[in-house]
Amino acid sequence: MEGLHFLRALFILALASSLAYASDPSPLQDFCVAINDPNDAVFVNGKVCKDAKLATADDFFFSGLNIGKITSNSVGSSVTPVNVAQISGLNTLGISLARIDYAANGGLNPPHTHPRATEILVVLEGTLYVVGLVHFQFNPRKRKAVAIAALSSQDPGVIIIANAVFGSDPSINPDVLSKAFKLDKSIVKSLQSKF
Amino acid sequence: MEGLHFLRALFILALASSLAYASDPSPLQDFCVAINDPNDAVFVNGKVCKDAKLATADDFFFSGLNIGKITSNSVGSSVTPVNVAQISGLNTLGISLARIDYAANGGLNPPHTHPRATEILVVLEGTLYVVGLVHFQFNPRKRKAVAIAALSSQDPGVIIIANAVFGSDPSINPDVLSKAFKLDKSIVKSLQSKF
Amino acid sequence: MEGLHFLRALFILALASSLAYASDPSPLQDFCVAINDPNDAVFVNGKVCKDAKLATADDFFFSGLNIGKITSNSVGSSVTPVNVAQISGLNTLGISLARIDYAANGGLNPPHTHPRATEILVVLEGTLYVVGLVHFQFNPRKRKAVAIAALSSQDPGVIIIANAVFGSDPSINPDVLSKAFKLDKSIVKSLQSKF
Amino acid sequence: MEGLHFLRALFILALASSLAYASDPSPLQDFCVAINDPNDAVFVNGKVCKDAKLATADDFFFSGLNIGKITSNSVGSSVTPVNVAQISGLNTLGISLARIDYAANGGLNPPHTHPRATEILVVLEGTLYVVGLVHFQFNPRKRKAVAIAALSSQDPGVIIIANAVFGSDPSINPDVLSKAFKLDKSIVKSLQSKF
Amino acid sequence: MEGLHFLRALFILALASSLAYASDPSPLQDFCVAINDPNDAVFVNGKVCKDAKLATADDFFFSGLNIGKITSNSVGSSVTPVNVAQISGLNTLGISLARIDYAANGGLNPPHTHPRATEILVVLEGTLYVVGLVHFQFNPRKRKAVAIAALSSQDPGVIIIANAVFGSDPSINPDVLSKAFKLDKSIVKSLQSKF
Amino acid sequence: MEGLHFLRALFILALASSLAYASDPSPLQDFCVAINDPNDAVFVNGKVCKDAKLATADDFFFSGLNIGKITSNSVGSSVTPVNVAQISGLNTLGISLARIDYAANGGLNPPHTHPRATEILVVLEGTLYVVGLVHFQFNPRKRKAVAIAALSSQDPGVIIIANAVFGSDPSINPDVLSKAFKLDKSIVKSLQSKF
Repeated sequence: MEGLHFLRALFILALASSLAYASDPSPLQDFCVAINDPNDAVFVNGKVCKDAKLATADDFFFSGLNIGKITSNSVGSSVTPVNVAQISGLNTLGISLARIDYAANGGLNPPHTHPRATEILVVLEGTLYVVGLVHFQFNPRKRKAVAIAALSSQDPGVIIIANAVFGSDPSINPDVLSKAFKLDKSIVKSLQSKF
Repeated sequence: MEGLHFLRALFILALASSLAYASDPSPLQDFCVAINDPNDAVFVNGKVCKDAKLATADDFFFSGLNIGKITSNSVGSSVTPVNVAQISGLNTLGISLARIDYAANGGLNPPHTHPRATEILVVLEGTLYVVGLVHFQFNPRKRKAVAIAALSSQDPGVIIIANAVFGSDPSINPDVLSKAFKLDKSIVKSLQSKF
Repeated sequence: MEGLHFLRALFILALASSLAYASDPSPLQDFCVAINDPNDAVFVNGKVCKDAKLATADDFFFSGLNIGKITSNSVGSSVTPVNVAQISGLNTLGISLARIDYAANGGLNPPHTHPRATEILVVLEGTLYVVGLVHFQFNPRKRKAVAIAALSSQDPGVIIIANAVFGSDPSINPDVLSKAFKLDKSIVKSLQSKF
Repeated sequence: MEGLHFLRALFILALASSLAYASDPSPLQDFCVAINDPNDAVFVNGKVCKDAKLATADDFFFSGLNIGKITSNSVGSSVTPVNVAQISGLNTLGISLARIDYAANGGLNPPHTHPRATEILVVLEGTLYVVGLVHFQFNPRKRKAVAIAALSSQDPGVIIIANAVFGSDPSINPDVLSKAFKLDKSIVKSLQSKF
Repeated sequence: MEGLHFLRALFILALASSLAYASDPSPLQDFCVAINDPNDAVFVNGKVCKDAKLATADDFFFSGLNIGKITSNSVGSSVTPVNVAQISGLNTLGISLARIDYAANGGLNPPHTHPRATEILVVLEGTLYVVGLVHFQFNPRKRKAVAIAALSSQDPGVIIIANAVFGSDPSINPDVLSKAFKLDKSIVKSLQSKF
Repeated sequence: MEGLHFLRALFILALASSLAYASDPSPLQDFCVAINDPNDAVFVNGKVCKDAKLATADDFFFSGLNIGKITSNSVGSSVTPVNVAQISGLNTLGISLARIDYAANGGLNPPHTHPRATEILVVLEGTLYVVGLVHFQFNPRKRKAVAIAALSSQDPGVIIIANAVFGSDPSINPDVLSKAFKLDKSIVKSLQSKF
């Protein structure tokens, strides 16, 4: 499959096919609003819920997505997630969103995977260079870009490949990374100090 | 649950919890691009696929979502779906999108349900009046509104309640609808002639 | 698809295809008998279970389905559900039942949907007029009718369309319903007072 | 768990918890009516479907369940299945039924398992002796009994244990069965000749 | 399908297709390490988890599978399970293992079913006589045999058919077993005393 | 979670938790043996099956796993997969295996992910250095190592991270990889020529 594609026009839809595919288990009641309480003593697959009688409309809404986060970081992009951690009513519903902002001239949402979701991406503004199987978006133009991603899980998870490989804690034996990535061990060690 | 909520600011996120919940079966290969050929002789759960060796990047992209459809119809809204019928690469991936345009001063995406998906909705422009359990969006303001909906199925389906009830073909016995909706039989017959 | 069908003989099977399709998540143990205790402090997707060592045969049985409920109400029908609320042992098993009684001369189980189940219906007694996609049963004959419905969820849920649309609390803006159902706003307001 | 229970009254509900639990994959379209054509050349998980435009109401109905099959056989019971083989519209819907007739004075639906379904059982007539985990029904009374079983699959499958063990073709080495069932090899050979 | 097959060489792979098929619900987080505490007061579908911050590498490891259990019992085989009860980190991951040891000259893993899993079997040592649909393994040779089974559930469950039928507690009415297995009632009673 | 662990003893079990989690859709019949015919004209989610009447025991067996592949390649490891491509009877059953051989003194199964499966790993011989979240195995010892992996899909798929990132065809823009991996563009280009 030819995997490279330039998106030239404003507001074009791009499907960024994920490295991973899964679907959340189906709900067993109308809703099951998550309790996002770090002091909660009971943990289950997904989230423990609050009493349905106490659910309110606010449990299903989120405002502020009109403003993106700043992109003045090392990769030139930022992600504003809207999943079960932000909208507790998404618990058991199997869907979530994210806003992604890309700096002009090279903003990059670096190669990553969502272990529990497929993804579809709408470019709201600007132009993005994407590749399907290796999952990233790159802004090659002189103006910023914005996209909305929809994901098929209440909590898709994310593993940024470079961080997972070179920035894991505890760190991976440099012999492993040197062999896997065909890099001198000194470069591996230098990378491990940067991530 | 208090189910009514006004969305006042530009670009606010609204979750429109669906009347129905389901998740598509998981994929069994990297991709399985649908053949949307009406002459195809074989039908299965989902879509028959093309030979994976013939898949191209274009099977995963859709352009033109920057322009909405006109809303000068009886309800004052229009839906531009982006599901497996528009992006054949969505087959087996369990996700899809739609753009919805609402006319100013009362544009309505009328009460409906998606029998095979949950839904999450981003308001891109304008203000919408929504109710969670009875699933619709209404634009009460003097400027148009635009939203993107993401749905947890490659083919969510849609049943517009008023059409299904009063506009079914063959038509439903008016005695049934008169009793169910507490309407005079003459009103039921009049409605059946309109839908 | 031609959707209307008269069932003339005693004890005929009718499939009432649901508006919604889903399947419960699979069980992860032999059984997980629900605790139906309103004072229970923990809520999860489905039901919290009792200690398996305390399960008894009675957790899996229900008696009294030989007697239907009275049908002298506004629609002339009554439903006796047998789901996880009645048989706590059904928790995690993905199936349930209901007995439906229909008054003679127009008993109606009004248009509705089960958001988490498909349904199959056996007519035990009498004759029913059904339509597949818009989901209801109507008894046009001079004798009462009885049916057993089986549903593919431990808790299928039910949304009676007329009630959800005209009887929601808080009530839906009459402008919305007037436009969606092509009814005068005065009729909408009158209906909202009846439901 | 105490697993034995006598059902004494007419029309009592009994849950016969299955030895196996599963749920069919979710549908990906409104319906997908199976082609039950033995000459069809394409086989898939489930059933190949006919063109949706050719579906009719008859694809979703089955009549004649008011009459049971005769029970004058070695076990004194008969099963009338109503699954995807009888109602082709059940394909992808994840549910099916069966009528079971039990002769008076010992009619037995022998120990069996449904590898792809859970089951719930309504006793329409008579009295049945059932055990949950080992899945059978036995009629100890002087009048016949009738039950309707609902199963959570379009094609639940059935493995009658005694037949599978002693009547498999090719037959199982008698040493295996002698050791497993603590029976003399001569008895095993005699049983193998009977099944 | 011809179901008998001799495995002659060392280290051959045999698929023992299970009597039952299911798949565990998908996980909703990176991991959810089970609390295997008999005093825990909350029970759910699957297992309640410990706080993710307290998970350690040991929660995902098991050692000692290099040594099998002794096989000097009535069937001449032993099973060493490695499922969520042994590796608490397997909770929500949908997979498990077992080591099976077979005595020389007739070691038998007797006919059984796993109600929540499919199974694939690797013969590490020796020769096994297996049948697919009726699920057992038998060692007909003069040297011991060893196999590793992988199962598609965190807790596959097991029902040993002979024990479930003849050794249930409370015991099944001998009339039932006599009729189902075509055995004299005296033999049935004798078997019930042995199991 | 502390993610590093040395496995010191022969025949120790290691769980290598995958980067991705999914479960195959459930089967809808006893078996559905895949047709692995490259000339077959019909493609579906999973595999088209052969006529069940033509299935044989050989469709469920695979021999030769006692011999590993040679490991004299750039990473010093080799994988012998046993999935639906090798055992066509695995179609719809949701499980598969692989044998992995590791050369002495640094044999490495490089960082990778299985987009459709969780994995559990048995070390048959030798010692392996593994990390859970970043999924690889490394043999630091002077003798070779052998493992059997079981995976919860009939076709787990594999994405070797270094190959996907630096060896994709068409190649990824070096600006992207330079920024993502914090490597000089000249090193990125050099890596792209090696993979």
